[in-house]
Amino acid sequence: MKLLRLTAAIIGIPIVVLLILAVLSLAMRAIYVEYSGPAVSEKHLQSKLEYLQAMEASSEDKFNIVLIFFDDLGWGDLSSYDNSLIDTPQIDQIATQGLRMTNFYSASPVCTPSRAALLTGRFPARTRTDRHVFFNDDHAIGWARRMLGLANELPREEITLAEVLQQVGYQTCMVGKWHLGTREGYRPTDFGFDDWYGVLYSNDMYPLDLYDNDEVIIKDKRQGGFLASERDEWSPLPGEGIDQTNLTRMYTSKAIEFLEKQGDDPFFLFVPHSFPHVPHYASSEQAGRSRGGTYGDVVEDLDRSTGEIMQALTRLGLDQNTLVIITSDNGADYNGSAGPLRGRKQEILEGGQRVPMIVRWPERVPAGSVTDAMAMNTDIMPTILGLLDLDLPTDRIIDGKNISSTLTKGESNHDLLYYFPTLNPLPGAVRDDQFKLTWATGDTGRNREHLSYISGAEAHEISNLHPEAFERLKSYLKTKREEIAANPRGWQIE
Amino acid sequence: MKLLRLTAAIIGIPIVVLLILAVLSLAMRAIYVEYSGPAVSEKHLQSKLEYLQAMEASSEDKFNIVLIFFDDLGWGDLSSYDNSLIDTPQIDQIATQGLRMTNFYSASPVCTPSRAALLTGRFPARTRTDRHVFFNDDHAIGWARRMLGLANELPREEITLAEVLQQVGYQTCMVGKWHLGTREGYRPTDFGFDDWYGVLYSNDMYPLDLYDNDEVIIKDKRQGGFLASERDEWSPLPGEGIDQTNLTRMYTSKAIEFLEKQGDDPFFLFVPHSFPHVPHYASSEQAGRSRGGTYGDVVEDLDRSTGEIMQALTRLGLDQNTLVIITSDNGADYNGSAGPLRGRKQEILEGGQRVPMIVRWPERVPAGSVTDAMAMNTDIMPTILGLLDLDLPTDRIIDGKNISSTLTKGESNHDLLYYFPTLNPLPGAVRDDQFKLTWATGDTGRNREHLSYISGAEAHEISNLHPEAFERLKSYLKTKREEIAANPRGWQIE
Repeated sequence: MKLLRLTAAIIGIPIVVLLILAVLSLAMRAIYVEYSGPAVSEKHLQSKLEYLQAMEASSEDKFNIVLIFFDDLGWGDLSSYDNSLIDTPQIDQIATQGLRMTNFYSASPVCTPSRAALLTGRFPARTRTDRHVFFNDDHAIGWARRMLGLANELPREEITLAEVLQQVGYQTCMVGKWHLGTREGYRPTDFGFDDWYGVLYSNDMYPLDLYDNDEVIIKDKRQGGFLASERDEWSPLPGEGIDQTNLTRMYTSKAIEFLEKQGDDPFFLFVPHSFPHVPHYASSEQAGRSRGGTYGDVVEDLDRSTGEIMQALTRLGLDQNTLVIITSDNGADYNGSAGPLRGRKQEILEGGQRVPMIVRWPERVPAGSVTDAMAMNTDIMPTILGLLDLDLPTDRIIDGKNISSTLTKGESNHDLLYYFPTLNPLPGAVRDDQFKLTWATGDTGRNREHLSYISGAEAHEISNLHPEAFERLKSYLKTKREEIAANPRGWQIE
Repeated sequence: MKLLRLTAAIIGIPIVVLLILAVLSLAMRAIYVEYSGPAVSEKHLQSKLEYLQAMEASSEDKFNIVLIFFDDLGWGDLSSYDNSLIDTPQIDQIATQGLRMTNFYSASPVCTPSRAALLTGRFPARTRTDRHVFFNDDHAIGWARRMLGLANELPREEITLAEVLQQVGYQTCMVGKWHLGTREGYRPTDFGFDDWYGVLYSNDMYPLDLYDNDEVIIKDKRQGGFLASERDEWSPLPGEGIDQTNLTRMYTSKAIEFLEKQGDDPFFLFVPHSFPHVPHYASSEQAGRSRGGTYGDVVEDLDRSTGEIMQALTRLGLDQNTLVIITSDNGADYNGSAGPLRGRKQEILEGGQRVPMIVRWPERVPAGSVTDAMAMNTDIMPTILGLLDLDLPTDRIIDGKNISSTLTKGESNHDLLYYFPTLNPLPGAVRDDQFKLTWATGDTGRNREHLSYISGAEAHEISNLHPEAFERLKSYLKTKREEIAANPRGWQIE
């Protein structure tokens, strides 16, 4: 085994290891199904419907929610998070009017599982999103995923924040990127949004059609590919599809149009932007203006969009009773900044999962506050339900916590946070307020668990100095791994 | 092609791509031989001998040289390079007595090509070390390398710094790790060292025998492996081989023993330490004392060793006429620190190739100087030859430059530096004093050349702001790639 592994590592073309991996992959479907159970649980679809029906009209003092969710925005990409090349005055101002969190995490270092976690409050394995991202069902990658037993959409029995809010009388709207399934029956309007406008997956995947609910309003004429590549720098040719230089602008207009339509009912506006995911297209007004290059232009476009949404709320007299949340689905990709953090998107190093998080809610969240309390985007759904005094479902584990006291008082609600690798249902690391422990990966230099200081860019392994912390975190991680392996979907035993 | 690549990337077990790689590997030998030419050039072995014989006694004002070369010490691992957990007072003091360089690079982000570059002044392709690292010839990995047409030792026709110095009357000694070939005829004493003491390759490879010239003085009884793994945390069991907790101490004693033997002849002492490469073993005196964990202990042991060598020079009255150079073979590995730099060992990001560099030479190198002038370890051989007024060989390209004015006056001698990936003879990036351009890799987000500021952790791609710099560096990189592809070994056309 060693011989095979090392031969491969050294000669550079790891034929032998790869053949072994190929053989292992044949066992993958079985392993995956064992972990995740059947794709659909009719029983829990039924209990979901019962849960939703039972909660009708149970909430009083309602507030509006605007949730702005960037794609691949890194921890170091905003000027309020010390970026020195990119200017984000609008978002920074919102931060000064509310709370900026320095230890906030996405539940995954990639897109799909993070989005599922945001909307359901559950870890990737719970929602069958623990094997990277979903692909268009009409094409071979979606087909291949199914052949390997992998999910390619959010299961119907999952309960989203939008469904709950819709049920208790919110007007709900999503403007932006979905990435939780492409088939009919698995789109935003099937998971609690009254309306949606946007795209089904990432802006480097194609055909990239623009939807207005179930109607395709801009059809991508490109054929035969799955991820866009060098052709015309990844964009459709003029007249062949979405003009990505205009995409943030179109989302912004649609979001403001939704706000302008609101009457007395509370609303939930979810704006999962397509950017700053690759490919990068700045608006014609912005292009060439950022000191952070085209990537900086794209982020500054997003900053302007956020400012315009905030200004619309103010103009419409909605800003006082609206909870505004701004965060990202995972850490920086190649052209973004992780600030001083180690690692990037796809990695369970800090730079892969730690993201900006800004919360504005006048009279509830103190202006100008900053907290280093830990939290994760799995907390958003249970926090909003908690603030609305709504019960969580009891037929399933909700992994997130109600962190409303973190928002309002900066209190800590987590002693521990878990990190989830892109291709594994089980957590690969755990942190507390001082240390991070990473599970042994088997790689050279990493063939035992790795304990590091959270404050030190995860450089030096220091388990010899802190054996108690090492054993404690290792035990927590082992227990959590066993728990999830035993009940990946997190159904409550009755 | 796209379909295949992406299917693999997304489903997580990239069978299809891997099969393609396997097929491609069959063409590797042919490609490699095309790049590198035959393994041995009798013609240049002859011209090497002529060069060495012609230079006898041509140098006057000689000085001693002590070259301390750490293995995997990262740019951020010394307290003089801002590490806040590891204390290196001895090395830091040497820095205050001489020059500290902040933009010094190894020629490769891995071991073997960097060592070849240090001793020959030549890029990895020149010395046939451009395909990762060498392995023990007696075992299957060495055999596999040969089967694939890869070199597994430094070619005989290469000219090392030690050979030149030996030829002009230096006493030469190497204490530490070689990693430039294991067969008889390709060991340190075959490349210019009168004596050597140490190991043939990295301390995670085994059997790890300890040599005193051609005699094995500690035999590793472990059998059947190539890289050590979890067994007893990678060390031989007591009595079965080298006690790695004592390895730095043994090297230090042997180095000081060499210094104590010196008479009137000038000397060259080369100390390529085995540490802080994995596995990490601290001395019994140091273990548990560093705030940087076991890794910190290992580095602090190296610091103490360096202090003891320096004190021996002083005690023996040799410190005034000795050029002391302290650097590392590549950037930080997993448990080391790259400081604020992006990337680590194996990568052409800054953290992979930028390393500490400290030079002490009283009356020549101003005490307490710091320079941000660029340089690379390929410069060390031509610089020393230049300082000794010795001619460089004329039958081959020496890629390094004489940077003596950088050492003595902080002057810049390089407008450009090239970066070398671990498995490619061609440079993958180039930098000047402000920008770095990385060649397109074809990965998502990296499918075009990437221009970044050197000062900004290589975060944002800024070619749109600096099209002139982008084109200029791209052109330099393209030209250098073509030059090396056309003449990888760098033989001069006659």
